[in-house]
Amino acid sequence: MRMVDLIAKKRDGKELTTEEINFFINGYTDSSIPDYQASALAMAIYFQDMNDRERADLTMAMVNSGEVIDLSEIDGVKVDKHSTGGVGDTTTLVLAPLVAALDIPVAKMSGRGLGHTGGTIDKLEAVEGFHVEITKEQFIDLVNRNKVAVIGQTGNLTPADKKLYALRDVTGTVNSIPLIAGSIMSKKIAAGADAIVLDVKTGAGAFMKTNEDAIELAKAMVRIGNNVGRKTMAVISDMSQPLGYAIGNSLEVQEAIDTLRGQGPEDLTELVMALGCQMVVLAGKADTLEGARVLLEEVIANGKALEKFRTFLESQGGNGAVIDDPNALPQAAHLIEVPAKTSGVVSNIVADELGVAAMLLGAGRATKEDTIDLSVGLMLRKKVGDKVEAGESLVTVYANRPDVAAVIDKIYNNITISDRAEVPTLIHTIITE
Amino acid sequence: MRMVDLIAKKRDGKELTTEEINFFINGYTDSSIPDYQASALAMAIYFQDMNDRERADLTMAMVNSGEVIDLSEIDGVKVDKHSTGGVGDTTTLVLAPLVAALDIPVAKMSGRGLGHTGGTIDKLEAVEGFHVEITKEQFIDLVNRNKVAVIGQTGNLTPADKKLYALRDVTGTVNSIPLIAGSIMSKKIAAGADAIVLDVKTGAGAFMKTNEDAIELAKAMVRIGNNVGRKTMAVISDMSQPLGYAIGNSLEVQEAIDTLRGQGPEDLTELVMALGCQMVVLAGKADTLEGARVLLEEVIANGKALEKFRTFLESQGGNGAVIDDPNALPQAAHLIEVPAKTSGVVSNIVADELGVAAMLLGAGRATKEDTIDLSVGLMLRKKVGDKVEAGESLVTVYANRPDVAAVIDKIYNNITISDRAEVPTLIHTIITE
Repeated sequence: MRMVDLIAKKRDGKELTTEEINFFINGYTDSSIPDYQASALAMAIYFQDMNDRERADLTMAMVNSGEVIDLSEIDGVKVDKHSTGGVGDTTTLVLAPLVAALDIPVAKMSGRGLGHTGGTIDKLEAVEGFHVEITKEQFIDLVNRNKVAVIGQTGNLTPADKKLYALRDVTGTVNSIPLIAGSIMSKKIAAGADAIVLDVKTGAGAFMKTNEDAIELAKAMVRIGNNVGRKTMAVISDMSQPLGYAIGNSLEVQEAIDTLRGQGPEDLTELVMALGCQMVVLAGKADTLEGARVLLEEVIANGKALEKFRTFLESQGGNGAVIDDPNALPQAAHLIEVPAKTSGVVSNIVADELGVAAMLLGAGRATKEDTIDLSVGLMLRKKVGDKVEAGESLVTVYANRPDVAAVIDKIYNNITISDRAEVPTLIHTIITE
Repeated sequence: MRMVDLIAKKRDGKELTTEEINFFINGYTDSSIPDYQASALAMAIYFQDMNDRERADLTMAMVNSGEVIDLSEIDGVKVDKHSTGGVGDTTTLVLAPLVAALDIPVAKMSGRGLGHTGGTIDKLEAVEGFHVEITKEQFIDLVNRNKVAVIGQTGNLTPADKKLYALRDVTGTVNSIPLIAGSIMSKKIAAGADAIVLDVKTGAGAFMKTNEDAIELAKAMVRIGNNVGRKTMAVISDMSQPLGYAIGNSLEVQEAIDTLRGQGPEDLTELVMALGCQMVVLAGKADTLEGARVLLEEVIANGKALEKFRTFLESQGGNGAVIDDPNALPQAAHLIEVPAKTSGVVSNIVADELGVAAMLLGAGRATKEDTIDLSVGLMLRKKVGDKVEAGESLVTVYANRPDVAAVIDKIYNNITISDRAEVPTLIHTIITE
């Protein structure tokens, strides 16, 4: 088998066999196939696409290119959730204890934030003492005991995807549905998921700018999952403005606590519910999304979800007092209001730019080596559709230095006040198969 | 400027600017742009094509990536001829002295053969003493004196094309009109041509399998030439069967001599005339192709063309006696006839496979390092459309070893005898602008 023939075959719109896809992924992983052939194939795939069988094969070839986490010692259906990335996205912090409160095992492998998006582990580390440096045995034991634990990315998972993603990033081949879908799904499957719930973001702050593109990607991933024996569902949700009000680690933990108490922002609560219902159905704890919602509302109302969060935090060394005492979280030295310059209605909040503003304060990393300040961030006071009077606060800046002029400039440049506003739909589509 | 942005731009069907094309070619030549980005761009060009301006810019960027031969010390319009490659293609050997006999300067930079196609220098070296190891000054002096000289490929011409061609060969991006056309035209222009005549082969033995593809390539090259100030014309000619009867170095020299004497094979003579007429017009020696033909027929009839060949051979150390004495050329030890097994009409002769058969005898090189046997080859006794009786010779094998069973097998496998035959048109199209 010669790689050049595979490239020509795909270039000519033909279907690659399972053996050919394995040949490519194995050869690329062990470097017997060079980057220049892989990038040519990626570009051919960009133009000629892959059918469902090829997509499933590509995904599993990437899964099998490295280690696969074995979660078989955990009882029950391991449902993982993946978000395509957004700003102020606190869903994992809420969802993990929420579904665990229904005895659904949540064995979560999470990452850190980079650029304008935050990471789940960074957020959890805002809780004093919390850490993810646990062994795989401890991790499995914690999940069996408490139904929820979080571990950092470990082992040599999907090396083919890592290599291919880095290559696509510099060869104009990122934006290809089969390649994106294969990349995401391979990582989830290698991390041991039995079933997967996907939160595909759409809008200006998201990778998929249009609803149609987001639906196409979500359907592609759901089909891959179901074709390789991992039941998969998806929610298409809005990321034209940040989710909830908080952007920043400590602020988002507080928002998660509020939401688990039933007092969270409407949009965050609704998205958590939509995703949670799918997780409950996939875990086999309810037959319908409606039935699942009743169960989730129950564990919020009776406090079990919030107690599960406390147990979870404490089980990994965290200070459970944060549940009851907001001051137990790291506090910023300066709170600076950003007043509206005119009256009207907020018509646009550019999500990724506000993510960058929070990063500039120290809440996120510009490069992987940066350290972050857990206490800083932004608290939106208005969201799209809200009326605002001149002088009223649009955003509260939580900072540890008084000079935040550049951040305030960025905030003004990325929040629009008009005569009227079109409020974006939060949940565009629910995809269950 | 970032290469990844150029790739994305072309991928999306947009036009690259002159600066962007120069950035790519310069960066690829000095290796600041890696192979994996060049191959991704090549694949994007394969799918999205380039317009006339981009093609001209790409060609000139490749010309300027290395040395450009300065032929300004040679008087007159330097017209070069290029063939896209075939089997038994003796045209250069005939054309060079033929047009030189009309005082048109032929300053020919030629190469050696590889695989099933022969090379002009190898063929000329069948003449005892002939050599191309001359300095550039000697070369220019010879052309000014005799109007014709041949030199080996020298200097660092079009390094970008060399590098890009090698990459395209292993990334499924060879077969792209703008890339093929730019590659060929850049080499001719860098070799100093003022005007260019192209012989684009079509048919089973050629790179372009269909007449339509050949016309598209020819038109692309003619437009590039004219857009960069090099008047260019093209002939689309058949390569479904070998040209002429001879395949092999010594045999082809003899065939060239016969043709310059006016006694050559009909197809070779006709193609030489078609290409020669374009060279004469481009050199400004005639206004019309018809007028040019009269001039060419004259120098064949009065012997000037053949005398020019003698002068040319002798001027580069060759034994001019070969003109009058066929035995002065290297002779093979064994002549083996390949008789027809049935009677009928020859309906197919697979050109490239007969080229391989000649290579197996030693007439060509399987790898660049091979040495060749100048005396061996094949002499076709029948061409497509010829009647043949069982037992009559189809081919004479000129060999230096008695055991040529594999060669004879290949000949039988690639010559078809049927009830009737469709004789291919030799010259499909003449493209003058």
